[in-house]
Amino acid sequence: MIIDGKKIAEDLRQNLKKEISNLKTTVKPCLVVILIGDNPASKIYVKNKEKSAGDVGIKSEVIKFETNISEKDLLKKIEDLNSDNNVHGILVQLPLPKHIDEGKVINTINPIKDVDGFHPVNVGNLSSGNEAMIPCTPLGCYLLLKEVIRDFNGKNVVIIGRSNINGKPMAQLLLRENCTVTVTHSKTKNIEKICREADIIVVAAGKAKILNKNWVNKNSVIIDVGINRILEKGSKKIVGDADFENIKNEVYAITPVPGGVGPMTIACLLKNTLKAYKNQIK
Amino acid sequence: MIIDGKKIAEDLRQNLKKEISNLKTTVKPCLVVILIGDNPASKIYVKNKEKSAGDVGIKSEVIKFETNISEKDLLKKIEDLNSDNNVHGILVQLPLPKHIDEGKVINTINPIKDVDGFHPVNVGNLSSGNEAMIPCTPLGCYLLLKEVIRDFNGKNVVIIGRSNINGKPMAQLLLRENCTVTVTHSKTKNIEKICREADIIVVAAGKAKILNKNWVNKNSVIIDVGINRILEKGSKKIVGDADFENIKNEVYAITPVPGGVGPMTIACLLKNTLKAYKNQIK
Repeated sequence: MIIDGKKIAEDLRQNLKKEISNLKTTVKPCLVVILIGDNPASKIYVKNKEKSAGDVGIKSEVIKFETNISEKDLLKKIEDLNSDNNVHGILVQLPLPKHIDEGKVINTINPIKDVDGFHPVNVGNLSSGNEAMIPCTPLGCYLLLKEVIRDFNGKNVVIIGRSNINGKPMAQLLLRENCTVTVTHSKTKNIEKICREADIIVVAAGKAKILNKNWVNKNSVIIDVGINRILEKGSKKIVGDADFENIKNEVYAITPVPGGVGPMTIACLLKNTLKAYKNQIK
Repeated sequence: MIIDGKKIAEDLRQNLKKEISNLKTTVKPCLVVILIGDNPASKIYVKNKEKSAGDVGIKSEVIKFETNISEKDLLKKIEDLNSDNNVHGILVQLPLPKHIDEGKVINTINPIKDVDGFHPVNVGNLSSGNEAMIPCTPLGCYLLLKEVIRDFNGKNVVIIGRSNINGKPMAQLLLRENCTVTVTHSKTKNIEKICREADIIVVAAGKAKILNKNWVNKNSVIIDVGINRILEKGSKKIVGDADFENIKNEVYAITPVPGGVGPMTIACLLKNTLKAYKNQIK
């Protein structure tokens, strides 16, 4: 089965749109994205975020800074946004220029406006089982899994990649659902064998098509977080970390790339913005 | 090999004592423990903490409240301790009476004085790979493991139990050391098989002697967090979650109960208090 992330994200956006249009308040949810420098990928991501926000009725604003903005000025701007009651979500597009401390920037965003879920308070609350903003990519992966898995209890999950953005929060989300969770990474031994025994694999290895037939079984559900730009037969192509064409018929379910996790990540950013808004309005 | 927690904790305390006696400051490290009600186990723990602190030169104070203290009064007391420059570590002995919200209490302690490492900021910082106060039990387990394991890279770790106090922070600590980490719990299927393939098992199942010969291999290192009071041949006895007598010769290394993790937990509380002190003095 192919898990249609595009369709599932569209449904999620429709639900958000409906909920937002029914809001009884005069102040509408507002997301501010800070973009520094001109990294082409970042610019595309930010543009997509802006468009998607508008489509569901979220007001969005992109604040652009030159690469040479000082850390102090950036932190000052974030503090201004923290105290602006008309701003409900703040997202600083990563990566940042080298002279700016990413940790400091993340720590400065008010956790209630932290729609990326990267602030230690949100990370800690997710881990401890409290109410928290959940990072968009793992939240999207989790919602995709819910479409194909009825009962998570005791499911054997293997997560490939231990990033703060995906692997670690993913582990917390699935542990909360009573899965047995194994976190693997570049230092893991026998990764093929470990994966072959899994019910669910969430792969964010950053290596094109690394997950092949030998890593899966007939009942596997594969969530592919990878986005790799490769050259195939002379033309540019975007592929995931799974060898989609060769395993799609060998597993129970799999997400394609593109059209799987990607659309869900953006939809979950909108979901988080609405959640942040509701937390601030009440 | 039997890992002698008593001896290793003693060495750690000696080092702390030496470091504290060499401090050039007039203000000495000070730990305040808040004890509510008269749970017999809590009273014993607090007494041990107080004595151990004194032995290494940490000033300690126990503040006792009746079970019926209001949440408001407790939070007020914590806030007073937060702003007291002579207090460097604050520990509220758990469990709390039912009318008091544990989350609120933990959230009120200033993270820099949170020697238990339970505040979301500390939990999040540990997860994200930042500087953090680390909960005492998993920190103790980690220091015991370091005594017998030279190279953690790629080691296959199984953690039994997913508590906020031990299992989850333990997973973060060993992931940071490049282990492959599997978190298991009561809903896990085939736990014996999963454990049998592990290089390291940290067990906090809360079930006397559950971990037996079928769960281990000749190279296993077993860290036993369990403390179970049982009746054996008519006499009371404290045993761990591992069937120590029957597996001690079947594995590479194992901690006894008592005399394993227990002494390390208290020694790590002192270590955290000194760390909190140094963070506040600088």
